[in-house]
Amino acid sequence: MQTITIKPGVQTRAYPVFIGAGLLRDAQVLQPFVDGGTAMLVSNETVAPLFADKVRGLLGGCRVYTVNLPDGEEHKTLDNMARIIDALAENRCGRDTTVIALGGGVVGDVAGFAAACYQRGAGLVQIPTTLLAQVDAAVGGKTGVNHAAGKNLIGAFYQPRCVIADTDTLHSLDQRELRAGLAEVIKYGLIRDAGFFAWLEENMEKLLRRESDALARAIEQSCRHKAAVVAADEKENTADGGRALLNLGHTFAHAMEAALDYRALLHGEAVAVGTLMAADLSRRMGWLGGGDVARIEKIMGEAGLPASPPAAMTVEKFLRFMQMDKKSRGGKMRLVLLKEIGRAQVAADYDAGGLHATLRAFTSGGRRGGV
Amino acid sequence: MQTITIKPGVQTRAYPVFIGAGLLRDAQVLQPFVDGGTAMLVSNETVAPLFADKVRGLLGGCRVYTVNLPDGEEHKTLDNMARIIDALAENRCGRDTTVIALGGGVVGDVAGFAAACYQRGAGLVQIPTTLLAQVDAAVGGKTGVNHAAGKNLIGAFYQPRCVIADTDTLHSLDQRELRAGLAEVIKYGLIRDAGFFAWLEENMEKLLRRESDALARAIEQSCRHKAAVVAADEKENTADGGRALLNLGHTFAHAMEAALDYRALLHGEAVAVGTLMAADLSRRMGWLGGGDVARIEKIMGEAGLPASPPAAMTVEKFLRFMQMDKKSRGGKMRLVLLKEIGRAQVAADYDAGGLHATLRAFTSGGRRGGV
Repeated sequence: MQTITIKPGVQTRAYPVFIGAGLLRDAQVLQPFVDGGTAMLVSNETVAPLFADKVRGLLGGCRVYTVNLPDGEEHKTLDNMARIIDALAENRCGRDTTVIALGGGVVGDVAGFAAACYQRGAGLVQIPTTLLAQVDAAVGGKTGVNHAAGKNLIGAFYQPRCVIADTDTLHSLDQRELRAGLAEVIKYGLIRDAGFFAWLEENMEKLLRRESDALARAIEQSCRHKAAVVAADEKENTADGGRALLNLGHTFAHAMEAALDYRALLHGEAVAVGTLMAADLSRRMGWLGGGDVARIEKIMGEAGLPASPPAAMTVEKFLRFMQMDKKSRGGKMRLVLLKEIGRAQVAADYDAGGLHATLRAFTSGGRRGGV
Repeated sequence: MQTITIKPGVQTRAYPVFIGAGLLRDAQVLQPFVDGGTAMLVSNETVAPLFADKVRGLLGGCRVYTVNLPDGEEHKTLDNMARIIDALAENRCGRDTTVIALGGGVVGDVAGFAAACYQRGAGLVQIPTTLLAQVDAAVGGKTGVNHAAGKNLIGAFYQPRCVIADTDTLHSLDQRELRAGLAEVIKYGLIRDAGFFAWLEENMEKLLRRESDALARAIEQSCRHKAAVVAADEKENTADGGRALLNLGHTFAHAMEAALDYRALLHGEAVAVGTLMAADLSRRMGWLGGGDVARIEKIMGEAGLPASPPAAMTVEKFLRFMQMDKKSRGGKMRLVLLKEIGRAQVAADYDAGGLHATLRAFTSGGRRGGV
C-alpha cells in the first residue's frame, strides 16, 4: 500500500490517500476514519452490487444507512444531493456521521457536496472505484453538482478524512471507463511531468491490460501531482497557474458536457478531446511544436480516446458554454494551454482568432469533422 | 459609523462590520467590496420596495441582477437557494460576481448559502435590514436553509466580504420584528456580559422607542461579542463552549420552529421562549438562582416577547426535534445552560429528569399553559 498525504494549504488538516490492492478487505484501513458510530454509504446502482456489502462488512459496530443514486453524469444534480440530505435527516444523523462515497466521480462529487452541506459539515470518506475518480475526482476536495447552464456550477471545497483507492475495484470497470480515466492520467504528464508522459507512452498497453504494477504507478504518480498542486492552491485562488492548471482541456470539455446535457460523453472522453483542442490552439499561438502535438494525438489514440467532439457541437455552442467556465474573470475566458509537454500555463490573452480557428477545425465545418 | 473587524480564526481573512445611520446613502461604503463589475442583489418582496433602488444607486457602473424571494422563515429552503443559483447561471455570472443579501436573516442565510456554493464561492456582501440580522444572522459566516426535519440542516460556513448595518433601515421594521431582534441582543448579555445585561434592563424602553443612540450601542455591543466568539471558534469545533454558546435557548427554539413548519414564530420569538426554558432548566439543576431567573423573565416580558411555546408544542415534539440539533454528538443532546447572568456553559450531562420537568412546565399540561 502506498500512502500519499494531501495537505491543502495552511487552512485545512492533512489527510491520507491510500493506494493499493485489497484495501477493501482490510477493516484497519477504513475504520479509524469513521468515528461517530453512524455512516451513510452513498453509491450507485452499478457499483453498490459489486462493493457495498464489502464496505458494510468493514464497519462492524456502526449504524450504516444507504443511498444509491442512478448511474451517469446526468444524475450529478442538486436533486440527488438533496436526496442524500433527506436520507441523513430522516435517519436523524448527527454532524458526527461519516458520509462514505463509494463509486466514480459522480458519486464522489454529489456525496461530497452533501457531506459538506449537511449540518454545515459532516465527515467524508472517499472510496473511488473508477480510474478517473482514483486519479482525480476523489482527491483534492472539489465537490459539487452540475447545472443545465454549466458543469460543476454548484459546489464546495470540502476535504475528505481519507481517500481509499483499492486498485482491485478497477478490474470490474468497462474498458470505456478505464480509457476515460487514462485521459486524466495523461493530463498530469502534459501539465507538469514530461518524464511521466514518456513513461505513459511506453506503458500504455500494460495500462490497457490493467497490469497491477503499471496501474498502481500511474495512480500514485497522478495523486502525487495532484497533491502538490492542491497544496499550493487549495481553492483555486492563484490567478495564473496553481490549481487552474489541472483544468487543461477542461474548458472545452465542460462546454461539450453541458451543451450535450451530460449524456454524450464520459468526463474523461470530453477531457481527451478538450486536451487535443488545447494542444491545437497552443500550436496556433506558436507555443507548442508540431512534434509535441503529434505525440499528444498519438497517445490519446492509443488510449482509445475520441479525437473530435460529437457532431452536435458547433462553434456557437462551444463559445456559449465556455463562457460559463469558472476560471472566467470579468467575463473574459481564461484557457489552460501548453508551452511544451510537461509545462502548462493559464492564458487570458490567448489569440481569439486562433480559438475560432481551433473551434472551426474541430467542429463539423472543419477538417476533422464530427465523430 | 462604527467599524468592527471580524477575524474568524487563522483560516479566513478579516472583514469589517460597518454600523451606523445613513450607510446606504454613501457609495463609498459598499463600492470597494463589489469589484467584479457584476452584482446579484437578493432581497425579498417586503424589503426590496424599501431599499433595493437605494442599493442599486450605489452600484454605478455595475451590471446588477435581482432576485426577490417571498418573505418568511418558511421560505428559507433549498428550492429558493436554487432559484438564486439559476439566476446567476442564466445571467452567465462569473465567480467574481458579488451576491448582495439585502434583508433579514432569511435573505442573508439563503443568499449567503447560494454565494458559498455558486462556482464553489462567489463574493458576498451582507446588508441586514432587521435588528436580528444586524446583531446575529449577518455576522459570523453561518449560511444555510431549513429542512422539514430540522432548522438550518443544510448550509455552509462562508464569510462575507463585509457587513453593512444601516440603523436607518430599522425605522421601517414592524414592532414585532424589533422585539424579536431584542431577544438575540439580550442573549449576548446573558451568555457573556452581565454589565450589558444590566444596561439593557435600564434601556429597554429607549430601544423599543428606537432611539438611535441606544440601538447603535446595542448593535455594536452585540457585534463585538459575536466577533470575539467567532474569532475563537469559527466552525463550532470547540466541544464545550466557544461558538456553541451563541446557541443559548436555540435547541428549544429550533425544535419549535421545525415542529411548527417555520410559520408560527419569528426566530427571535422562539429564541426568547427557548431562553426562558434554558433558564428554567438551569435553575432546576441548581446552576441559576431564582433571582436571576426572575430578571430574565422580566426583561423578556418588557421586550414584549412571548413567555411560552405555542399550544401545539408537546413534550414529544420538543424531544423529537431537539435530537436533530447540530450540537448533538453520538445521538446525545448538548444544551447551552446558564451558570449565572453573564456566564453560559454547554452541558452534555444535563439532568434528563430536569429537562422533562422543564418541557412539562412549558407545554400545555404544565403550569404555564400555551399561548
